[in-house]
Amino acid sequence: PQMDPQIEGNRNRFMDFPYVSGLYRDLMVELVLTMESRLEPYLLPCTLPQDVQYYHNDARTAHGSLHIRSGIKPSPIDFVLGSWLHCELPSGALNITSLSAYLSPLTDAPNFLMELIQSSPTSLVFILDLPPRKDLVIHSDYLKTFYEDTQLERHRQLLEKIPEVRPYSSSSLYIRCVISPTAILVCIETEAGKTDRMEEIVRDYVSAVAKEVLGVWLDRCACGEREMGEADRIYLAKRDGIIKKETLQIDLGSSLPRLFGQEVAGRVLEAIQEVSHTRGI
Amino acid sequence: PQMDPQIEGNRNRFMDFPYVSGLYRDLMVELVLTMESRLEPYLLPCTLPQDVQYYHNDARTAHGSLHIRSGIKPSPIDFVLGSWLHCELPSGALNITSLSAYLSPLTDAPNFLMELIQSSPTSLVFILDLPPRKDLVIHSDYLKTFYEDTQLERHRQLLEKIPEVRPYSSSSLYIRCVISPTAILVCIETEAGKTDRMEEIVRDYVSAVAKEVLGVWLDRCACGEREMGEADRIYLAKRDGIIKKETLQIDLGSSLPRLFGQEVAGRVLEAIQEVSHTRGI
Repeated sequence: PQMDPQIEGNRNRFMDFPYVSGLYRDLMVELVLTMESRLEPYLLPCTLPQDVQYYHNDARTAHGSLHIRSGIKPSPIDFVLGSWLHCELPSGALNITSLSAYLSPLTDAPNFLMELIQSSPTSLVFILDLPPRKDLVIHSDYLKTFYEDTQLERHRQLLEKIPEVRPYSSSSLYIRCVISPTAILVCIETEAGKTDRMEEIVRDYVSAVAKEVLGVWLDRCACGEREMGEADRIYLAKRDGIIKKETLQIDLGSSLPRLFGQEVAGRVLEAIQEVSHTRGI
Repeated sequence: PQMDPQIEGNRNRFMDFPYVSGLYRDLMVELVLTMESRLEPYLLPCTLPQDVQYYHNDARTAHGSLHIRSGIKPSPIDFVLGSWLHCELPSGALNITSLSAYLSPLTDAPNFLMELIQSSPTSLVFILDLPPRKDLVIHSDYLKTFYEDTQLERHRQLLEKIPEVRPYSSSSLYIRCVISPTAILVCIETEAGKTDRMEEIVRDYVSAVAKEVLGVWLDRCACGEREMGEADRIYLAKRDGIIKKETLQIDLGSSLPRLFGQEVAGRVLEAIQEVSHTRGI
């Protein structure tokens, strides 16, 4: 069947991951396809403007792609968001690839978040979490269901045992509050030139853990039934809105203008805000 | 003036810290005296039973002391709690000293928590935090007031730079949820036999940081004015109650029976529950 060349072209642009090695590209493509094929009945097509699905700075030293698919209403999906960034910096090339999914107030199950930040071929920050959507301090049943019973802790502990892996702290105190107690936030550093060892760690551990945690999220969170009352939904909608607004501001609000200039950054941030309905909250 | 010998005797028993070295004893005594002298107008005397102020197991291989002073009502203080434990284990002597303070629902300011766990003369776990009393994800003003403006993060970063210091994770996911984003949870390990280096780290860093953070807590939390509405107080009382019940269960509920036997552990836990009003919640 003949595809709309424009839509197909854009789809490919995001899924190309043109600046990272085959290992990272294969991992990202597999994660995106796994997530989207499972959630397909709930997802609308990506309707972002062309110049947001792919964007670059004036000097063409920074390139980015954004891919957002909103959930149909009503459905448990708010939206899924994929992104990659590539910047040539004085210190070397920076590559950031990420995949996240936000659920709707029809469920209180955790969201999904994964990010790979390569600041050199021998340095990788790996962030993987199911960020909770309730205050875990007063909802210990929620903690048990999504974090204890799912044994997410063993993935964190597996990675911690690798000699090249160190814990990573977000410089933002707010981001530290938003993540779960089983969040994986690690910095992986191999010796200068040891890119083969880095690829080994990514292939044997990072990829495996990312796929397993995505599986847990799809089975238990995105596709798990949760009974929700009206008050719960109102509370969740409010809390979700605050998180989206604050994390967007912290995560992209400062870095995009720096890397792409004010005009491009403004256009991309506005497109995200429009989809995430956080404007004016 | 003539003191009541019994009260004076008990007071001394807790403040003796008889099983730890002078360095740890001096630190604990200074912290307790600093806290209690500043909060004196709000504090009732310790009225714990004799056999809870000091207790031991049948074999006399495990000794413990508990010191609790409730706040007068109404006052911003719920209670302050000091404790030490000493156990002779097959692996060596275990010494735990701790000081914590819980505020009342008249304020929403963070609590205070410090714990030193020495499992050998060259191994120390140091926990220091102002655990928040609100959901920081939706109260970013609270995060700013108590954690950003107070610059608590710099103490954590100072300790992180010491080569013998590694991050420490509580095995309890619930405890990880209860702590703040600037919580200090570190494991300090010096080479076998290097007790002098451990004492140096405790004197130059651990003591200094503990005193500074206690100062911040006294100035900004325990003695800072906060405007609280009726709904805020009800919410806080409920959240505080859940935290006290859960953490007590996790922290002491499993270790005390193991170290002291069921009877002694039951007596001590009951005394804590009575003071912390968590029974039946």
